[in-house]
Amino acid sequence: MTHLLDWLDIDQETWVRCIQEAQFCADYRDARADRFLGKALGLVFFNDSLRTRVSMELAASELGAKPVVITPGSGTWGFAWDDGPMTGGEAEHIREAVGVLSRYCHGLGVRLFAEGKDRQQDMDDVRLKTFAAASDVPVLNLESAARHPCQALADAAVLDRQFDGHTKGKKFVLHWTWHPKALPMAVPNSTLLMASRLGMDVVVARPDGFELDEGVMDAARRQAAAHGGSVSETNDADTAADGAHIVYAKAWGGFERYTDPAAEESRRHAHKDWRVTTDRMDRTDNGLFMHCLPVRRGVVVDDAVLDEGPSLHLDQAEYRLHAQKAILSMLWESGSRSPSSEDVTDPAQP
Amino acid sequence: MTHLLDWLDIDQETWVRCIQEAQFCADYRDARADRFLGKALGLVFFNDSLRTRVSMELAASELGAKPVVITPGSGTWGFAWDDGPMTGGEAEHIREAVGVLSRYCHGLGVRLFAEGKDRQQDMDDVRLKTFAAASDVPVLNLESAARHPCQALADAAVLDRQFDGHTKGKKFVLHWTWHPKALPMAVPNSTLLMASRLGMDVVVARPDGFELDEGVMDAARRQAAAHGGSVSETNDADTAADGAHIVYAKAWGGFERYTDPAAEESRRHAHKDWRVTTDRMDRTDNGLFMHCLPVRRGVVVDDAVLDEGPSLHLDQAEYRLHAQKAILSMLWESGSRSPSSEDVTDPAQP
Amino acid sequence: MTHLLDWLDIDQETWVRCIQEAQFCADYRDARADRFLGKALGLVFFNDSLRTRVSMELAASELGAKPVVITPGSGTWGFAWDDGPMTGGEAEHIREAVGVLSRYCHGLGVRLFAEGKDRQQDMDDVRLKTFAAASDVPVLNLESAARHPCQALADAAVLDRQFDGHTKGKKFVLHWTWHPKALPMAVPNSTLLMASRLGMDVVVARPDGFELDEGVMDAARRQAAAHGGSVSETNDADTAADGAHIVYAKAWGGFERYTDPAAEESRRHAHKDWRVTTDRMDRTDNGLFMHCLPVRRGVVVDDAVLDEGPSLHLDQAEYRLHAQKAILSMLWESGSRSPSSEDVTDPAQP
Repeated sequence: MTHLLDWLDIDQETWVRCIQEAQFCADYRDARADRFLGKALGLVFFNDSLRTRVSMELAASELGAKPVVITPGSGTWGFAWDDGPMTGGEAEHIREAVGVLSRYCHGLGVRLFAEGKDRQQDMDDVRLKTFAAASDVPVLNLESAARHPCQALADAAVLDRQFDGHTKGKKFVLHWTWHPKALPMAVPNSTLLMASRLGMDVVVARPDGFELDEGVMDAARRQAAAHGGSVSETNDADTAADGAHIVYAKAWGGFERYTDPAAEESRRHAHKDWRVTTDRMDRTDNGLFMHCLPVRRGVVVDDAVLDEGPSLHLDQAEYRLHAQKAILSMLWESGSRSPSSEDVTDPAQP
Repeated sequence: MTHLLDWLDIDQETWVRCIQEAQFCADYRDARADRFLGKALGLVFFNDSLRTRVSMELAASELGAKPVVITPGSGTWGFAWDDGPMTGGEAEHIREAVGVLSRYCHGLGVRLFAEGKDRQQDMDDVRLKTFAAASDVPVLNLESAARHPCQALADAAVLDRQFDGHTKGKKFVLHWTWHPKALPMAVPNSTLLMASRLGMDVVVARPDGFELDEGVMDAARRQAAAHGGSVSETNDADTAADGAHIVYAKAWGGFERYTDPAAEESRRHAHKDWRVTTDRMDRTDNGLFMHCLPVRRGVVVDDAVLDEGPSLHLDQAEYRLHAQKAILSMLWESGSRSPSSEDVTDPAQP
Repeated sequence: MTHLLDWLDIDQETWVRCIQEAQFCADYRDARADRFLGKALGLVFFNDSLRTRVSMELAASELGAKPVVITPGSGTWGFAWDDGPMTGGEAEHIREAVGVLSRYCHGLGVRLFAEGKDRQQDMDDVRLKTFAAASDVPVLNLESAARHPCQALADAAVLDRQFDGHTKGKKFVLHWTWHPKALPMAVPNSTLLMASRLGMDVVVARPDGFELDEGVMDAARRQAAAHGGSVSETNDADTAADGAHIVYAKAWGGFERYTDPAAEESRRHAHKDWRVTTDRMDRTDNGLFMHCLPVRRGVVVDDAVLDEGPSLHLDQAEYRLHAQKAILSMLWESGSRSPSSEDVTDPAQP
């Protein structure tokens, strides 16, 4: 059984095949109809979602599978994660919850954002791994504390198509922006790993104090080396976009949030000028804007960049649907089916 | 592309065909099964719903389409509507939200009640039009500030059937009733326009201070003139129902709510006797009771009117399902399909 | 029309056939696919659910029917139950809500826990019966104040299979456990009635003050007599499990909760040692643990009993899906279909 918690676990051939399959599904939306007829997909959302839930429901349905959405604490019990006697507010342990769902469903998607309490727990995706360990069926990460693989595949398929397969050597700026909240790092982590795997020249542009996790940076550098690209960093917002082919905006909080949240906040608020403006886009090499959404207009990016473009943000969102069909196909493999009732004795028939 | 925001935008031939299609779907519930296989319908509910959501989910499903329900602020982010930097609580702008959904879905339904802050904004359905403008796919009004076209078509189909096509000249009383809250005007507006389009002799019975919008009254008078009916008003609850064929009860708040809510409230509470009683029904010409539901028993109408009848309120609710199938067919047109994968090269096949 | 509110209303032949059908559906999950194509199932949840909602959505879907979930007060109006003028917070009466849903749906499931205010109202399932009386279509009890028939059938199918049809004479201990809350009695009632109907030797082990309803005990004794089993009671936690084949743990509150909640609470908290421990399981005759879930680890049962077994708790949960397919088949009967549109004149065709 294969999970998809992180693309780093998945070999290059499968990664490339998933990009191609996503593009095929984009070209022919009714392709693969009923490929997984009779399968059930449980979708567990510990956090809010618009694109992910809607596109997962449709991805499953369009493949013939039945999606069922579970929102812990809303219409169902809250789930306990800790060991020891359950005398608190939660009525059900994650072990039973996942155990039961994996009896009903042939796959489970789960969204489980960073708790923001323990850096190492978050960066190691400890809760996601606990969830997956309790499951007897494939688990798909719908954005965890540290990764967002569905977004990464969608973005990769968009970029590959945009550059007609020639992503290698293109300048990709992962551009930190200011945001009123200390957002988690799943998207920047996965974006960095995705762009480096495409062999792009990736620049992580962020103020001092907003570095990404060193383990993720190392993995990105290894991938860049393997795929002919590079990874570098800058703390200069004004020149970061110079000559870029892609400016991928994203806000995230600094690691100081785990140790001194007030310091992180005041450091962050000192960088309100880190916004992707039309002026900054003018310094690119006919660069395209990208963002995973939701995006705060006028905070993260100028309205005109979204409205007048060139921007790929709606294509990225659309490709979530196609990418997730590709991922479901990878997890379930074509042709695998439940035991069939054909040719058996039926007690309801004489 | 056609939206259905208001029936006033739709020509007479289409209106009549929709009534017939709704009646056909009522007679044969499995008609049109799979007509729109592979289509996705996004249903965005900014406000509560029972009939609308359930009947829309079923209408879509029974036509082969996949419905997906979105409840802004519950399981997904709240949406910002205003221009200017998004520094408030909402993480996503309606422009991106609708833009994304119209990439996933082939149609969008939206429920968006009156805000009650600005009379002209509400009567002009400004937010509904903002939503529709952001969509690349047909938008269906599931009750806005000023209109409820799904209810109007359902009611028209019920009335047409009830009078065997002879609605012209029948007396239709749109009967204001007391209610503890200042309810919005979408239903009375749409009901008035619907009955006048059927050529009925429409009487709007309401206390002084609870007049409907003059623009809606004018539109209704024009329709009555074109279809052989009439529109009049009365402020006498005791004689309003005399000789009526239909008593359509509905509570709504007065326009004073926009300028002096306390005055509106005390004016409204002076009319607690505006209830559809069995005595008032006895003064009709074997009249039938109608209500769009939900209805407050003993407040808007006597229990006996609902329980012993004759009343069409459950038929009206049922016809919502049939009417909405007719509307989806109008919006999507039979036979339009997504690009097909037949006869193309499939990367997953050797 | 048949409802399923309580198995006591259903004859023995049907009960046995449902057990067999549940087991058949367990063996062949794709059996019965599309048996009820075109049907709609409304699922009304007044209370939280995990297993029930997910398994009902899948049971319906896998039979070809469309499930629609309604959560009163969340996305829809709250429902009023009482007679008299509706001047409170609820906008819709249960009579209209159910009346409307039974126009849309071919069956309605409803979860409606005990209110805990009036013992007789709860034990008589008064609100469930009010709901069912307002419906024109079959109503399925998804756990009411007094019964949980879906759980009972699932458990019966698991037990029948476990003992290869030889449940008669096996020792079945319904084992009360401590719990921080005074839980309702639907599951212990239905479990007792289920095990006695299988002819098992049922022991209700509970502290004094936690007796089950005498009417339920009487019904269980009558069933035991008819099916070759027995029903007895004990208040000794330490010897209750001796020689047992099944230890079915369940917490419930005492009837004192209706008259003196503080006394019930302090009486309950005096029995924190009523937990199914590994030591107690060691005194059984290779006994199996059962629980309907959700279960509080370390409170109701030792972790090791769940994790190392032998335990049937995940099988019980899984069989909910299979049992509910059997129940839907019983309620809808194979072959019944909506009026068909075949061979009729279609207004949309020339």
